Amino acid sequence: MNGAQALIRTLVDAGVDVCFSNPGTSEMHFVAALDDVPEMRGVLTLFEGVATGAADGYARMAGQPAATLLHLGPGLGNGLANLHNARRGRAPLVNVVGDHARSHKRLDAPLESDIDAIAGTVSGWVRRSLSPADVAGDAAEAVAAAKKAGVATLILPADVSWEDGAEPAVPLNVRPRPHAAPSLIEGIAEVLTGEETVLFLGGDVMASPEGQLAAARVAAGTGVRLVTETFTARTARGAGLPELTRLPYPPEMAIAALKGTRHLVLAGATAPVHFFGYPGLPGHPVPDDCTVHVLSVPGENGVAALEALAELAAPGAEPQVMERETPELPTGPLNPRTMAAVVGALLPENAIVVDEALTSGAGLTEMTSAGPRHDWLSLTGGAIGDGLPMALGAAVACPDRPVLGIQADGSAMYTISALWSYAREQANITTIICDNGSYAILEHELTRVGAASDGERARKLLDLTGPALDFVSIAQGMGVPASRASTAEELAEQVRSALAEPGPHVVVATLR
Amino acid sequence: MNGAQALIRTLVDAGVDVCFSNPGTSEMHFVAALDDVPEMRGVLTLFEGVATGAADGYARMAGQPAATLLHLGPGLGNGLANLHNARRGRAPLVNVVGDHARSHKRLDAPLESDIDAIAGTVSGWVRRSLSPADVAGDAAEAVAAAKKAGVATLILPADVSWEDGAEPAVPLNVRPRPHAAPSLIEGIAEVLTGEETVLFLGGDVMASPEGQLAAARVAAGTGVRLVTETFTARTARGAGLPELTRLPYPPEMAIAALKGTRHLVLAGATAPVHFFGYPGLPGHPVPDDCTVHVLSVPGENGVAALEALAELAAPGAEPQVMERETPELPTGPLNPRTMAAVVGALLPENAIVVDEALTSGAGLTEMTSAGPRHDWLSLTGGAIGDGLPMALGAAVACPDRPVLGIQADGSAMYTISALWSYAREQANITTIICDNGSYAILEHELTRVGAASDGERARKLLDLTGPALDFVSIAQGMGVPASRASTAEELAEQVRSALAEPGPHVVVATLR
Repeated sequence: MNGAQALIRTLVDAGVDVCFSNPGTSEMHFVAALDDVPEMRGVLTLFEGVATGAADGYARMAGQPAATLLHLGPGLGNGLANLHNARRGRAPLVNVVGDHARSHKRLDAPLESDIDAIAGTVSGWVRRSLSPADVAGDAAEAVAAAKKAGVATLILPADVSWEDGAEPAVPLNVRPRPHAAPSLIEGIAEVLTGEETVLFLGGDVMASPEGQLAAARVAAGTGVRLVTETFTARTARGAGLPELTRLPYPPEMAIAALKGTRHLVLAGATAPVHFFGYPGLPGHPVPDDCTVHVLSVPGENGVAALEALAELAAPGAEPQVMERETPELPTGPLNPRTMAAVVGALLPENAIVVDEALTSGAGLTEMTSAGPRHDWLSLTGGAIGDGLPMALGAAVACPDRPVLGIQADGSAMYTISALWSYAREQANITTIICDNGSYAILEHELTRVGAASDGERARKLLDLTGPALDFVSIAQGMGVPASRASTAEELAEQVRSALAEPGPHVVVATLR
Repeated sequence: MNGAQALIRTLVDAGVDVCFSNPGTSEMHFVAALDDVPEMRGVLTLFEGVATGAADGYARMAGQPAATLLHLGPGLGNGLANLHNARRGRAPLVNVVGDHARSHKRLDAPLESDIDAIAGTVSGWVRRSLSPADVAGDAAEAVAAAKKAGVATLILPADVSWEDGAEPAVPLNVRPRPHAAPSLIEGIAEVLTGEETVLFLGGDVMASPEGQLAAARVAAGTGVRLVTETFTARTARGAGLPELTRLPYPPEMAIAALKGTRHLVLAGATAPVHFFGYPGLPGHPVPDDCTVHVLSVPGENGVAALEALAELAAPGAEPQVMERETPELPTGPLNPRTMAAVVGALLPENAIVVDEALTSGAGLTEMTSAGPRHDWLSLTGGAIGDGLPMALGAAVACPDRPVLGIQADGSAMYTISALWSYAREQANITTIICDNGSYAILEHELTRVGAASDGERARKLLDLTGPALDFVSIAQGMGVPASRASTAEELAEQVRSALAEPGPHVVVATLR
């Protein structure tokens, strides 16, 4: 058995049976070995950023790592932005990065670069496999590391892949995530009864209905306020769950949201900081006289900690939850508000919503919060271009659930070839592209940073209308049926019909 | 004056007056400052890989660095593959990578990552500007470093950009590239008269008609063979220049091409190695008993060294050059050969050809070699997706010259949004997309590596026809007029009309 065969067999035995691939010459033995291990599903992408973003979305929904197959340093580079997002969302995934044969490494061939250094910037675990005898053991460790620490990267020299002498390795046990100690929970329980306290929720708590309900019981029993991270990897949402306040993105609003807080208790989250620094503003919204307490940080079992806390601090308390309520279908002009209402009115049961709407997303969370139960995936690391790929990964992870992508136009272009993979996999994804013809988020930011001048030439660099992007034509060119909606009625009709029909659809919403 | 204004003014004063941009929030002051320094031309791209590839193409044609404007670690990551190509081709360029404000850096905000580590893998020079008082001096050094060592990366914290107290810096003198010492040239001259010798040409020699003619004089006077690097950053070509043999890409053919060589003399090149290692083959084509001599390596003045060598070793020798000869326009089915003949027949005077045709490029160099004078840009680092962006940069550098891109389909998708920038800039670029519906190069490689099995599932990962990509629709969606040619006659008609009309055009050549 050669190294590639043992590697793939080990991945599959450890539960990693999807590989989002964009291979090159150095990965050809891995590709060939796919025929020897039919349990591994190879999903072809046309760009590495699609592969890594899909693995991110897959991990968030499957709770299991997928693998990626990338081509040397440049391939890893192309995938880096979405690996950054995966790292920030603690999504487990295993990158397999092909490299030159060991004997070729010292020759400084044209594709030679420092893969280890690039990988280190996004990975919690990096290893270079040095012999066919080691590669399966390395793969088993990679999977275990991914489950524990998020992104794991295994660098695979071509000859380690092609040489014989390898055997599959047994999957490693992964210890369950640590629980908070009872004494810690007792200490936190005392904090809750005193001055103005916020229970700040993120990570595993947000992904779990049980976690959210435990937090709501604590709130009902103690009067603490619940606030959530601004961008969570995965949030369970809909009627029957508590109404949660998201910490606003703009620094001034985030500061106002936490004003007067004396105790901030972290559950599945780290203490919030602003996305960017701005002239004359502090870097985070936590008041100076507020004490931060840790119930659980990301990587620990926040749900169990909250359930124990609810038991102790709010025994018998009933959580306040939302009654089902969906907006009316709107009519008339299409803008972010009416688009949000269409989404809220038509959101199917058990959907997965992938939100990279950015500035076009105003009203979107509000209009959907009390709808049918669904999961919501956000951009965790701020590197735009994760939305289209994440939807692919989510659809591969959950083939029986409808996926609804809501995608800003500017960021859609980063990884637009994801649409081709949608068509190839016949993934059940409806994508609404929010066409506002600008990098609108940057127009806001240009003003916000207090830039000394914002004349004609600066504005021109943020304008996407010269020429206008025709996403209908682009999507059709990649094999995805597409249509354009210019009114709320048209959007509703097109989204309804896209959701009713299996396979991918793009609906371009002209927002003006 | 704030840091951004001083930075841009310094770049312009040092001759860097084009910036290929994909900005984000942390770069807003740089964007705003564009209005204060109108000599700086900002070219917007929709993806950082387009910005860096355009800067690569610009540098190759202008012989001067352009700047790029990139957004933190993920933005640099998106641009990394084409920076790798630029590094391998020694193209001078200055990356300006925005980062968090200094005070925000320690907060581990969502977009925080190790920019310095990523930058180090592609840059000959990296610096982080630490105060507004330093930023202009840092920029002057960045330009000087780029001219000397290729890729220079300046990391620009947002507050260094927005704070006042900066002043422009005076451009630094860059020492001319070193000349070979007379004693070295004398030593090489002695080698040429002995056993089987190859003069191996690359880098600045290939870009220069004078360099090539000097090499041809040496060959005429001494009988040495001339062989060139497989992939050169820029090659001057056409009638009146010598016919040069390119070292073949396949290892077996490269080994055959250098068989029997006892002395290999490097002029503007390093000793050749195979692109990849393969089972059972040596890593390079240079025979074991061949002595390698260095006349000049990349970064030195190879043209001057060759001219001195010609003076000494071949005084009065007349170089053998090609007479003008262009192929007849072919008729009938379209395949790589007939496509190459169409290109050869229609190649305009003084064109810039950007070649990322990969497997579809068979015959292309042969059919154009004795045509009108032109420059030829190749993929230098093996990271596909540089072709479309390089053509943009070449068109910006040389607005009066026609640019002809010949682009493989699979690799076109890596940076397809370059087409939008073509339309926005009304760049005079005709792009032939070679539509063969597969990662054909990988199908060859799958066989070549001697993969143990190459069954159905492996083949499926290399097939681009499910669904077929419609590049006409994709290009039109980005504002570029496009057509499809299925016969040699159609291709000729469409290319002729595209070349006759200013602005960008895409012609999709269906190769079957």
